[in-house]
Amino acid sequence: MPVLYHHWLSPAARFIRLMLAEKRIDFELRLEKDWERRPAFLQLNPAGEVPVLVLDNGATLAGTMAIAEYLEESVPSPTLLDGTAEERAEMRRLTGWFHTKLGTEVTRLTVQEKLNKRFLGMGEPDSEAIRCASHNLKIHMRYIGHLAERRHYLAGNRYSMADAAAVAHISVIDYFGDIVWEDWPEAKDWYMRVKGRRAVRTLLSDRVGGILPPKHYDQLDF
Amino acid sequence: MPVLYHHWLSPAARFIRLMLAEKRIDFELRLEKDWERRPAFLQLNPAGEVPVLVLDNGATLAGTMAIAEYLEESVPSPTLLDGTAEERAEMRRLTGWFHTKLGTEVTRLTVQEKLNKRFLGMGEPDSEAIRCASHNLKIHMRYIGHLAERRHYLAGNRYSMADAAAVAHISVIDYFGDIVWEDWPEAKDWYMRVKGRRAVRTLLSDRVGGILPPKHYDQLDF
Repeated sequence: MPVLYHHWLSPAARFIRLMLAEKRIDFELRLEKDWERRPAFLQLNPAGEVPVLVLDNGATLAGTMAIAEYLEESVPSPTLLDGTAEERAEMRRLTGWFHTKLGTEVTRLTVQEKLNKRFLGMGEPDSEAIRCASHNLKIHMRYIGHLAERRHYLAGNRYSMADAAAVAHISVIDYFGDIVWEDWPEAKDWYMRVKGRRAVRTLLSDRVGGILPPKHYDQLDF
Repeated sequence: MPVLYHHWLSPAARFIRLMLAEKRIDFELRLEKDWERRPAFLQLNPAGEVPVLVLDNGATLAGTMAIAEYLEESVPSPTLLDGTAEERAEMRRLTGWFHTKLGTEVTRLTVQEKLNKRFLGMGEPDSEAIRCASHNLKIHMRYIGHLAERRHYLAGNRYSMADAAAVAHISVIDYFGDIVWEDWPEAKDWYMRVKGRRAVRTLLSDRVGGILPPKHYDQLDF
C-alpha cells in the first residue's frame, strides 16, 4: 500500500489526501514532523516538506503538484481535471493560486502563529502577522465567493483539483475558527456543497492533539 | 499569433518562452511591468504576475505551471516531459523546486536587490538580503552539479521541463554576474550543454536597458 508522509494541518498534504480519496486509492498515513528535518526524511525529499508519497515499488514522489499530476496520469478515473485543455488550464491556475497565494498570504501565517507558536512552543504569536492573515483572508473569501457564484464549483461546473486545493486550505483555516461564514454566503454555499463529499469528510474528522475546532467545523449544514 | 505578457528578467516568463521556443510555437512578446499593477492586466490575471498567455481565440492562460501543462497537452511534440509516469513526476518535482525554492531563496532576492532597487529606484539594496541570496546560491549550485553529474540532464537522461526551469532562473542570476562558474564544474558542464539549444540562445540575446551582463553570459564555451 502506498505510504503518504503528512502532518495534520499541512494544506499540501491534505490536498493529496483528498486526491487519493477521490480516486479511491488506499494508502497508509505516516505522520512526519517535517520541521524537525529528520535526515531519513530529507533523503526522501530534499525540500524537507510533506507531502511525500512512497509507492509500492519503492519509488518516492515529492512536490505537491508532481504528486497530483502523477495521480491524474496513473489513475485517470475519476479525473479531477475534467474538461478541455483550456478548462484544465483554469483548474490548474486556481490550484496554483490556492497553494501559493492563499497559502502564503493566509494559511501559512495562521498555522505558524496559532499552532506552532501557541502549542509547539516556537515563540510568541506575532499579532501583526495574525492581523495580516485576517485581512488577506477577507480578500480570498470574496474571491472564492465570486468564483462559486458564477461557476458552481470554483474552476467550472465540475468539482476539480482547484476545489480540492481550496478545501485543503480553507479546512485548515476553519479549524482555528478564523472564518466568519455569515459574511460570505456564496463561499459558504460552495463549502457546504463540497463538505458532502466522502473524501472531504475523511479530512474533517481529524483532530490535532490539544486543539478542538469550532462546532460547525465538520457539520455539513452550518 | 499568441501573445505572451512577460518582462525580461522574470524567470517564470523565461520558462514559458523556453517552452514555446522548444515547441516552435510562434508568439508575440509583450512587455508588462507587472509591479505597476495595471488594471487591464489584473483583468487578465488577478494574481497580477507575468507570464500570461493570450491565445488566438482570446482565451487567457495564467499561472506558470498551468501554462506549461497546457502547452504540453496542446502541442505534445516535442515533449518536455518524456518518460514514464514516475520519471515525469521527477521532472515536475524539480520544475517546482527551481520555481519555488531557487526562486524564493535566490532569484527573487537577486532581482529585487540588484535590479529593482538599483535601477528602478525602489530603495536602497539590502546587503543582508544579497548575502543571504549568495549563500543560498551555493547550495543550489551544488545541487545542480550533483544532479547533472549523475543524470546528464537534471531530471534524467533527456532535456525536460526541469532543465528549462533551471535555465530560466540560472540565466537571470548569471545576468548579474553572481555565479562563480569555476567553482561548479559539473553545473557548468550542464549549462554549456543547454546553452547550445536554439531555444536557450533566444533568451541569452536579451539585454535589459542600462545593464550589461558579464562577457561569458551568452558564450557557449565559457
